[in-house]
Amino acid sequence: MRVGIGIVGAGVVGGALASKLIDEADAIEAKSGLSLEVVKVGVRDLAKARPFDLPADRLTDRPEDVVDDPDVQLVVELMGGLEPAGSIVQRALEAGKPVVTANKELVASRGLELSDLAHERGVALLYEAAVGGGIPIIRPLSQSLAGERLTRVMGIVNGTTNFILTKMTEEGAAYSDVLAEAQVLGYAESDPTADVSGADAAAKAAILASLAFGSWIAGDDVPRSGIDGIEVEDLIRADDLGYVVKLLAIAEESADGVAVRVKPTLVPHEHPLAAIRGAQNAIFVEGDAIGQLLFAGPGAGGEPTATAVLGDVIDAARELLAGAQVTPPVRFQPSRVLEAGRINTSRYYRLIVNDAPGVLARIAEVFGDHEVSIASVWQEGMGGQATLLLVTHQAPESSHDAAVADLERLDAVAEVAAVLRVLDGD
Amino acid sequence: MRVGIGIVGAGVVGGALASKLIDEADAIEAKSGLSLEVVKVGVRDLAKARPFDLPADRLTDRPEDVVDDPDVQLVVELMGGLEPAGSIVQRALEAGKPVVTANKELVASRGLELSDLAHERGVALLYEAAVGGGIPIIRPLSQSLAGERLTRVMGIVNGTTNFILTKMTEEGAAYSDVLAEAQVLGYAESDPTADVSGADAAAKAAILASLAFGSWIAGDDVPRSGIDGIEVEDLIRADDLGYVVKLLAIAEESADGVAVRVKPTLVPHEHPLAAIRGAQNAIFVEGDAIGQLLFAGPGAGGEPTATAVLGDVIDAARELLAGAQVTPPVRFQPSRVLEAGRINTSRYYRLIVNDAPGVLARIAEVFGDHEVSIASVWQEGMGGQATLLLVTHQAPESSHDAAVADLERLDAVAEVAAVLRVLDGD
Repeated sequence: MRVGIGIVGAGVVGGALASKLIDEADAIEAKSGLSLEVVKVGVRDLAKARPFDLPADRLTDRPEDVVDDPDVQLVVELMGGLEPAGSIVQRALEAGKPVVTANKELVASRGLELSDLAHERGVALLYEAAVGGGIPIIRPLSQSLAGERLTRVMGIVNGTTNFILTKMTEEGAAYSDVLAEAQVLGYAESDPTADVSGADAAAKAAILASLAFGSWIAGDDVPRSGIDGIEVEDLIRADDLGYVVKLLAIAEESADGVAVRVKPTLVPHEHPLAAIRGAQNAIFVEGDAIGQLLFAGPGAGGEPTATAVLGDVIDAARELLAGAQVTPPVRFQPSRVLEAGRINTSRYYRLIVNDAPGVLARIAEVFGDHEVSIASVWQEGMGGQATLLLVTHQAPESSHDAAVADLERLDAVAEVAAVLRVLDGD
Repeated sequence: MRVGIGIVGAGVVGGALASKLIDEADAIEAKSGLSLEVVKVGVRDLAKARPFDLPADRLTDRPEDVVDDPDVQLVVELMGGLEPAGSIVQRALEAGKPVVTANKELVASRGLELSDLAHERGVALLYEAAVGGGIPIIRPLSQSLAGERLTRVMGIVNGTTNFILTKMTEEGAAYSDVLAEAQVLGYAESDPTADVSGADAAAKAAILASLAFGSWIAGDDVPRSGIDGIEVEDLIRADDLGYVVKLLAIAEESADGVAVRVKPTLVPHEHPLAAIRGAQNAIFVEGDAIGQLLFAGPGAGGEPTATAVLGDVIDAARELLAGAQVTPPVRFQPSRVLEAGRINTSRYYRLIVNDAPGVLARIAEVFGDHEVSIASVWQEGMGGQATLLLVTHQAPESSHDAAVADLERLDAVAEVAAVLRVLDGD
């Protein structure tokens, strides 16, 4: 059965998807029974050469023309960013056309409203490729685990930063050098801000948390730090202490609300996430009955992402043809995000101290004042300035932050040089 | 919206599912919008105490009464085995009632016919829990990756044998001792044949291969060896050589057909599957565009399996209410199974030889005659009997088997003590 497909955005993923739909049409039809015809593709520059073969009149530089084309029954949005992507998705849903998107920024920002709109119009809004690239994670969370009380979702969801951290750790290279190399290799964009600031990972964490706990969380509500301030010294010291530093997205449900955050985190060497190197992604899903599930694979790249988009396109096309909304877009409960200060965490501190008798006692006193208990301490260097490494037990973020403020006021402390989270227990 | 559920089989998984549906009805309804009411449960022994709370008139020891109950709209089959489970599933589908099952033996044996029947009647036949227990793998294969040309599916799909092999390797304990321990701990059944013979893994391999390649393969068509003949000596020697022995299911597509088999296999220490310990399962899915995906988690157990079944029940109930068959049961192409002898593989051999000049030359000659090339050799012991370990390069199974037959005829070879596969390359 034939379904007319419109694609807006023909960059790396859009180009790979169009090529797949055109070149492998027979194989897709044999496997799915669907004839998915690319009717219209919205591009930025009509003059640019494309990796796919389509008559010129099927290309347009007006994205709304894709949505409005009466022969387009299903819209795939692969422009990225909030606008004009958001208007395009909204226009399609309002016209009763199902939408498949890989746009994590849009879903993390307007997912609640767009899901409601899709629900109202009785059409699908699918976004498997928005998190984890080619890794099937959205469908398992929203369908396979629909009957499970999930307790935690945690993982490495940004390939660029994992590539950079892996390189820095393994080669002892500085952040700026590795970033430059990643840009040359195509692992980082020319403006890497969204990745290295943790914003991309925060959007994905918000989507995962919303689906896992059925409670809407916007990307902007996720406390985050990026890797742009990371010094290679801390990666090396963490390694000596038995950890590897990963940019970790964690979402946990507790009685007080959903705690979600994205932070560079010390992961014990023996933890499976420590073994996820380079641009790979890996996500743990934990639940009462299910125990611990691991999903891992290529977190980005045109081809894997296009595969995930195509899986959604096939699903949405089937629903469309069946004339029924079988898996309604998730309807989220009001958000109950735990404020950042109340999240319990262990931390790693690197302090530059003026080595003098009693320094350690004064520092320990500051932590004690804020009820942050120290798990272990290492001191290096004597006379003049020394380096002090501390790993603490769990305490609320607000207590940690208050301790840092006090430490910075101590004469004995020249600098609080690094503050990182530690993944403990499991 | 309400859906009447009938469950046949109230063992570990059935009991866990019924408890979940009854105790967590409110949470399930909040998350899915569905009121799933347990209308009838078929049990073997009406007198036995159950972990779930149901009025006595909702229990029956006649499984067909569950299917025939007009208030039962959806049937969950959790009896296991071919009969009477097969008749019950068929009866339900013929009555136009969707079926969810965790029965890998039934799906691997009659899946083609039952899928066709479900397709004809326009109802769902779902079996996420048949492979990998709580790990979502069926849905990713049949939906998320529907547009992908998959090349290989490979993994550890039987928790009992992985538990036994892990224990034997880590404790140097004999097979029979570890099996007895596994039985006491509940990791192995009192009759462990299906697990240790590789039959259970072969059924799962057949299901994975059928879905991955869209080509129907029956469980009985999967060449297999179990772990019942495994000696701890080979586990220790494999470890010395840099490998760990796993019961591996592998299905690969080649131009000549689908090669699928279940065999104890030497896996390099650095391979991610080497790290899968105890009763865990892990499955790699590989494709042209997708690269390599890993799914891992608890491969068995009542609770995780019941979670997977519940995900299917929610899906099937939604389709039922929508009155539409959105994801039609997979329609398989005719099978193109590559015969076992043509599968290329590397092997590990342990030979007991009568140590005399020229022995190694004669053995090497036998392998050479059959065009099996030797990658490495270790010899231990001198004078009298010696142990010879060989690891070969890839060669067709038939060539290996012919070499073994000739080796057994050599006076110099006292015994071909062990023959195992080696996972090479990747």
